[in-house]
Amino acid sequence: MTPGGAGVRRPDQHTQAAAPAHAPGITGVSAGSVLGPYLRTQAADFLRSLRLHRESTAPTDAGSRAAEQAATALRRSSRRIGATLRTFRTALDPLWAEQLRTELSWLSGTLAREHAYADRLTRLLEALHGLSGDPVLPAARTGDTPGTGRPVLGVGAARAGALLERQLTLARTRAHSAALQALGSARFHAVADAVALLASEVPLSPAAAGPAGELLAEPADRAEQRLLGAVAALPSDESAEPYNEAHDAPWHQTRLLLRLHRYAHEVVHGAPDPVLAAPGHALDLHRDAAEAAGAAASAARTPRIAPATAYALGVLHADQRHEVEAARTLFRASWPYATTGAARS
Amino acid sequence: MTPGGAGVRRPDQHTQAAAPAHAPGITGVSAGSVLGPYLRTQAADFLRSLRLHRESTAPTDAGSRAAEQAATALRRSSRRIGATLRTFRTALDPLWAEQLRTELSWLSGTLAREHAYADRLTRLLEALHGLSGDPVLPAARTGDTPGTGRPVLGVGAARAGALLERQLTLARTRAHSAALQALGSARFHAVADAVALLASEVPLSPAAAGPAGELLAEPADRAEQRLLGAVAALPSDESAEPYNEAHDAPWHQTRLLLRLHRYAHEVVHGAPDPVLAAPGHALDLHRDAAEAAGAAASAARTPRIAPATAYALGVLHADQRHEVEAARTLFRASWPYATTGAARS
Repeated sequence: MTPGGAGVRRPDQHTQAAAPAHAPGITGVSAGSVLGPYLRTQAADFLRSLRLHRESTAPTDAGSRAAEQAATALRRSSRRIGATLRTFRTALDPLWAEQLRTELSWLSGTLAREHAYADRLTRLLEALHGLSGDPVLPAARTGDTPGTGRPVLGVGAARAGALLERQLTLARTRAHSAALQALGSARFHAVADAVALLASEVPLSPAAAGPAGELLAEPADRAEQRLLGAVAALPSDESAEPYNEAHDAPWHQTRLLLRLHRYAHEVVHGAPDPVLAAPGHALDLHRDAAEAAGAAASAARTPRIAPATAYALGVLHADQRHEVEAARTLFRASWPYATTGAARS
Repeated sequence: MTPGGAGVRRPDQHTQAAAPAHAPGITGVSAGSVLGPYLRTQAADFLRSLRLHRESTAPTDAGSRAAEQAATALRRSSRRIGATLRTFRTALDPLWAEQLRTELSWLSGTLAREHAYADRLTRLLEALHGLSGDPVLPAARTGDTPGTGRPVLGVGAARAGALLERQLTLARTRAHSAALQALGSARFHAVADAVALLASEVPLSPAAAGPAGELLAEPADRAEQRLLGAVAALPSDESAEPYNEAHDAPWHQTRLLLRLHRYAHEVVHGAPDPVLAAPGHALDLHRDAAEAAGAAASAARTPRIAPATAYALGVLHADQRHEVEAARTLFRASWPYATTGAARS
């Protein structure tokens, strides 16, 4: 699909035979000839997912599963298009890129919410189940009778679970309505039209005729440098205050930068950098645990709940905050470079 | 003090110049000539501490500090005498040894309680302080306003602290009265008399005239084997359910076995095995955290507490249970032998 250009490869460039069709030898080709096919592919994916979503409005279980999958795919393309518009804006029509990026970010955020509430509820109920104990435990050798091991949680865990289920299901339902409303809005139709145009013709800047080596490799390197800088600036484990949510922000920011780097790598090298899959997963876990802890704390602010419920929510909150810490440890353990932020080359 | 006997030393035997006077070359000497001086020294320490305790009944701060130190010293000697009576009972009058051991265990348990409640309160209040956040935090860059970071804990932490203070101070006061009552009881006077006799003459069995190599080294080895066996049987970290107090029992048991080994090593080698200092400390931390978690759970069962208080106690409980896990990790990391329980020789 892209012109030949079998020039010099960067040492870290992927050379596997199964590399996607748009994996370019980046030297000797124009920026547009790399960026164009990538964006057109993502735009086509977006439109296909949108069609699938519209076809799966049947209020059956299978229909709602299909709609969920279609929404996930829509978000996937939206994130990739948005990130590409951001990272490689100098090779694109800048005004158009900035505007579409903002709209895609709104769309993907709106679609993500329903899914996030569902995941959060599952995570919290599973954690509560683990905290309040497995009924199929091997009989303890210490003569422990049922209920004596974990005194208050048994009472409160069920109530806390019911409270979380009520609150997060309500939030999920609202997010679902908001997503449906968004997908029917004029604002969304404008986004869909813009993506449909993108699928046939990418609004490149005149500069995009220039060499990809400058116009794509440099912004991709900057995206990597921003990620490395953010990782180097992460507070050390020693200074960690596990219950202080204000300290989560640099981690969340690192997660976003890793995602931008991931998509830029995809554009330039045809696939995400495999060594960053595990750190990326750790940062997703970090985000999920931090938000689950927040939901437990928020549920505990419900007026007139029983002390046993509040107690179980406190245990749950602390448990999820420890999962936050564990995710940080996992991130550090899987991070492939020196933590000083020095790049590999 | 002990007869010469500069025989073959065990390879792991301590050879430092500053070894205590009763550190024996165990080959070529009788069991009684090792056991006698050790027990007489401990008995003399016991009697001195008892005298100090009686002299420090002045209700001043200095007086109560001195009484506390004297009680700590009393427990220290009681534990050592009791452990020695247990491990080396074949070299002693068995009926007498068993009886005095039981009484010393009662005494040291009674004296320990007051101290334990005080430590537990300190531990829990410090943990609450850490959980509810340090007021001198660097201003967060995320526009975080005071109080938004840790929503419920601020309200509940102070109340939880006050509740714990009330409950544990009451428990401590009761333990103090119980200890004073015990020290004035006929039962205690009988113990003190028995220890006074021990300070002048140790009731050795006829066998104690035999070689220390058999009568002391073998029971000491058995104490070590019991410890190694208990460590090998500890459940793996993978199977850990951090909130299940029923799983604490084998760890508490290991702590007691390590202490028995420690004192047996002291008798035979003149000093505790230095490589077991860190694992022993980890098991102490384990016990302290487990009991603190229990106290938080128990406080949460107080009727009519506010949900915010219960929530903070739940967070505190989970935090201490995670300290339990951390102590286990610390123990495994500091344990000097292969975890299969294979002894070093």
